[in-house]
Amino acid sequence: MRTNLETLSLQTEEKQQLINITAQVKEVVTGSGMKNGFVGLFSQHTTAALVVSEFQNALLDDIRAFLSRIVEDEMPYKHNSPEFSDCDRRNATSHLRSLLFNNSVVLPVCAGELVLGRFQSVILAEMDGPRERKLKVQFLGE
Amino acid sequence: MRTNLETLSLQTEEKQQLINITAQVKEVVTGSGMKNGFVGLFSQHTTAALVVSEFQNALLDDIRAFLSRIVEDEMPYKHNSPEFSDCDRRNATSHLRSLLFNNSVVLPVCAGELVLGRFQSVILAEMDGPRERKLKVQFLGE
Amino acid sequence: MRTNLETLSLQTEEKQQLINITAQVKEVVTGSGMKNGFVGLFSQHTTAALVVSEFQNALLDDIRAFLSRIVEDEMPYKHNSPEFSDCDRRNATSHLRSLLFNNSVVLPVCAGELVLGRFQSVILAEMDGPRERKLKVQFLGE
Repeated sequence: MRTNLETLSLQTEEKQQLINITAQVKEVVTGSGMKNGFVGLFSQHTTAALVVSEFQNALLDDIRAFLSRIVEDEMPYKHNSPEFSDCDRRNATSHLRSLLFNNSVVLPVCAGELVLGRFQSVILAEMDGPRERKLKVQFLGE
Repeated sequence: MRTNLETLSLQTEEKQQLINITAQVKEVVTGSGMKNGFVGLFSQHTTAALVVSEFQNALLDDIRAFLSRIVEDEMPYKHNSPEFSDCDRRNATSHLRSLLFNNSVVLPVCAGELVLGRFQSVILAEMDGPRERKLKVQFLGE
Repeated sequence: MRTNLETLSLQTEEKQQLINITAQVKEVVTGSGMKNGFVGLFSQHTTAALVVSEFQNALLDDIRAFLSRIVEDEMPYKHNSPEFSDCDRRNATSHLRSLLFNNSVVLPVCAGELVLGRFQSVILAEMDGPRERKLKVQFLGE
């Protein structure tokens, strides 16, 4: 049984950025030697999340606009107030937007290949960049 | 160790439809022969998602109304504009609503039975039907 | 191969409560004897969910305020109407808010330790308490 745990490091470049990491995930799957089982990707952060969706520029703009509409920038967030919080990043919206995605994505691996639908990409949702982000990659299978 | 990967095909019937697939999932669990471990269900699509919730007609109507309130039909979505997108389905709302659910659901299997709470059902959230949808079903256990 | 399935019981105390259960999860991981693999936590309920986020009081208040803004208390929910529903808890908002979180959380275990980022906590999102809640905890690894 394979139970490799690996780390994928990514440098993000914008405050809010949707990054297609499918190629990196496929590479780490190939490198793992696992033939059949699960691969889990786990963001180690509370303002960077993961999601599987279509990676198309127009849709990414729509996702960003949607996030801004439902988690508004101008609100009296307690997390941003020195009275209630010792976090000086004032990034309440980054936390709330991350919650709408997932901290992890689990996917099947079959015959050594990541199993994804034709239009699906694995996307890192950076909500408070630019930063260096770390994903743990857990394999379980044979 | 069992690492079967199977496919579940479903024909949806409406543009936006919440379908109780618990019976089909239980059937494929029984058919797999796996006694203990995880079963993962993976939508292969970007406008059909999965969720575990209560399957009650009144609540399903509330979920649909909620989806329409937070992802409005009438917005200038770029994904729907020929100027920005070559997708002629104009289904930005289908993508955004799918993001609020999950592309996958992982559940435990114990003594050959799917483990679910009394009021829980596995629901396919079709957001852009009617279509034939495929779910990959990955088993991992013994 | 380890495939233990265990149960974690929790008594919640408020109608809507975000509870840090990281210590309990770490305890059950240690008790399992599993060294490497996945641990999955599965809410057995449709109005109590799970999420991985930062557990900071100011942010928890922001999350609660956000939930109230996007799932409003005063709406003509069908699930709350005796005309459409035989559920006398009138808890449509509890269901809808739970849907914004997850019914499950899967995490890696490495060298016997739960793998979480520095600011990450496992949080039980009680949306219809106070109640006794049960989580199934599925281990898979070695």
